[in-house]
Amino acid sequence: MAAVELTLTERITNLLYDYVEAIDDGRLEAWPELFVDDCVYKIVSRENSDRGRDLPLVYCDGIGMLRDRINVFRNALIYSYRFDRHLLSNVRVVDQANGVYRVRAHFSVFKTDPEGQTEVFCAGRYDDRVVIPNGTPRFKEKIVILDTFNVPNMIQTPL
Amino acid sequence: MAAVELTLTERITNLLYDYVEAIDDGRLEAWPELFVDDCVYKIVSRENSDRGRDLPLVYCDGIGMLRDRINVFRNALIYSYRFDRHLLSNVRVVDQANGVYRVRAHFSVFKTDPEGQTEVFCAGRYDDRVVIPNGTPRFKEKIVILDTFNVPNMIQTPL
Amino acid sequence: MAAVELTLTERITNLLYDYVEAIDDGRLEAWPELFVDDCVYKIVSRENSDRGRDLPLVYCDGIGMLRDRINVFRNALIYSYRFDRHLLSNVRVVDQANGVYRVRAHFSVFKTDPEGQTEVFCAGRYDDRVVIPNGTPRFKEKIVILDTFNVPNMIQTPL
Repeated sequence: MAAVELTLTERITNLLYDYVEAIDDGRLEAWPELFVDDCVYKIVSRENSDRGRDLPLVYCDGIGMLRDRINVFRNALIYSYRFDRHLLSNVRVVDQANGVYRVRAHFSVFKTDPEGQTEVFCAGRYDDRVVIPNGTPRFKEKIVILDTFNVPNMIQTPL
Repeated sequence: MAAVELTLTERITNLLYDYVEAIDDGRLEAWPELFVDDCVYKIVSRENSDRGRDLPLVYCDGIGMLRDRINVFRNALIYSYRFDRHLLSNVRVVDQANGVYRVRAHFSVFKTDPEGQTEVFCAGRYDDRVVIPNGTPRFKEKIVILDTFNVPNMIQTPL
Repeated sequence: MAAVELTLTERITNLLYDYVEAIDDGRLEAWPELFVDDCVYKIVSRENSDRGRDLPLVYCDGIGMLRDRINVFRNALIYSYRFDRHLLSNVRVVDQANGVYRVRAHFSVFKTDPEGQTEVFCAGRYDDRVVIPNGTPRFKEKIVILDTFNVPNMIQTPL
C-alpha cells in the first residue's frame, strides 16, 4: 500500500489498531515498542476518575517498566484464559497542541476461557497522548479508563 | 484540528460519535441538543419492526420531549447501574435526498452495575435521518432498532 | 452519494459492512453473492490456527457450496435464536499483491435468543483476500478465525 498517502488521522488510528492487535495476537513484546521512551501508561477506574481521584490500578512510567511488565507476564503469571479480543469504536483526535495529539476511543475486551467460551471482560475508553517522532506515531501517554472497576480476576495482559 | 477539512461522511460520523459519548460520559443534557427542534426519536423492537408493526417502546416528538426525558432521568429515576458504554460499527450514509442523509450503524451497549461488573445490555442498529442546518449535522429522526426486545430492567438512559 | 468518489479502502470496508449486514438483516441469499465464483470460505478455531493445524470447523469451496449452505439454513435447520448482530473493528488492508488485497478485521457477534435477551456469541478475526473483478470488490477467500472454540450451540448462520 506504499502508493497510498495516509492522512494523519489514519496513521494515528493505525497506531491504536497496532496496539490492540499486538495484545490480541499475543505479540506482547511488540506492545512497549509503540510508546516513546519517556512515556506514561495508566489504568484507572472510571469511578475514581470521575471523582477526581488519581489512584491508578496500574502505573508504568517509562518504556522500561512496560518491558518489565511483559517479562512478568511471560515468566511469572499463570494464565487462566486463552485469548483476548479488543473492539474499538469512536477513535478520533479530539485536540492537539505543540505536536501532541489527544486521542479518544471506546473499547471492549472479550476474553475466551480455557473451555473456549467467550465473555465480556471489560469496557471503557482510552484517553491518549500521541506524538510523532521520526514520522511514526507513538504513545506519549495512554490512560485506560475502565468502566469495569471490579475486574474479573487479575489484569494479566495489557488493556 | 481546524486546518483539516472533514468530509461530509466524517462530519456525520462525528455526530454519531458525539451522540454516544454524550450518553456514556453522563452529559445527558447535551443529548437533545444533537437533534433539530422538529425531530423524532423512537426505540422499536426489531421483532415488531421486522413484522411491520409500529409499536415503539419509546417515542419522542420534538426536542422538548427529549429535554423532558432527561429531566425525568435526573430527577425521578433511581439508577441501578453505573456506566454505559456504546460501541459503534458500520457507520455509513446509505442514501440521501433533498438534503436528508439516511445513516445506518450497528451498536452494542455494555452496562456496568454497582458492583463494577460489565455485561452486554443490548445490541441493535440505528436508522437515522440527518440534516445539516447552519452547516452542522443534526438528527432529524433517530430510530433505535433493538435486537434485545426483552431489555434487562428498564431503559433508563437514551440508547 | 454518486457524486462522492470512494477510496479503495472505503470500498473494501463497504464489502465487509455489506457482508455482516446481509447476515444480520437475515438476507442470507445475498451472502454468497459477495464472493467470486471460485472462492474459499473457512471457519477455523484460533486454537488450531495458532498451532498450525488446518482443521476447519466449516469449509466451503466455490460459490455453489455457499449457496447450498444457505439452502440448508432455510430448509433444514431449526433456529433456536432470533437475531445476529456483528460489530467490526480494525478493518484494514494489510497487504496487496497482483490485485489481491489481504484484509484484516476484528469482530464480535451478539445473539438474541427467543426470550429477547442478548449475549456474546463469539469473537475473533477475519483474514480475507479481496479481489476487484469488474470494478466491484468481492471475497476470493474469507477465513473466520474464531477465538470461541467452544461455540454455544451449532454455528447456524454464517459468521
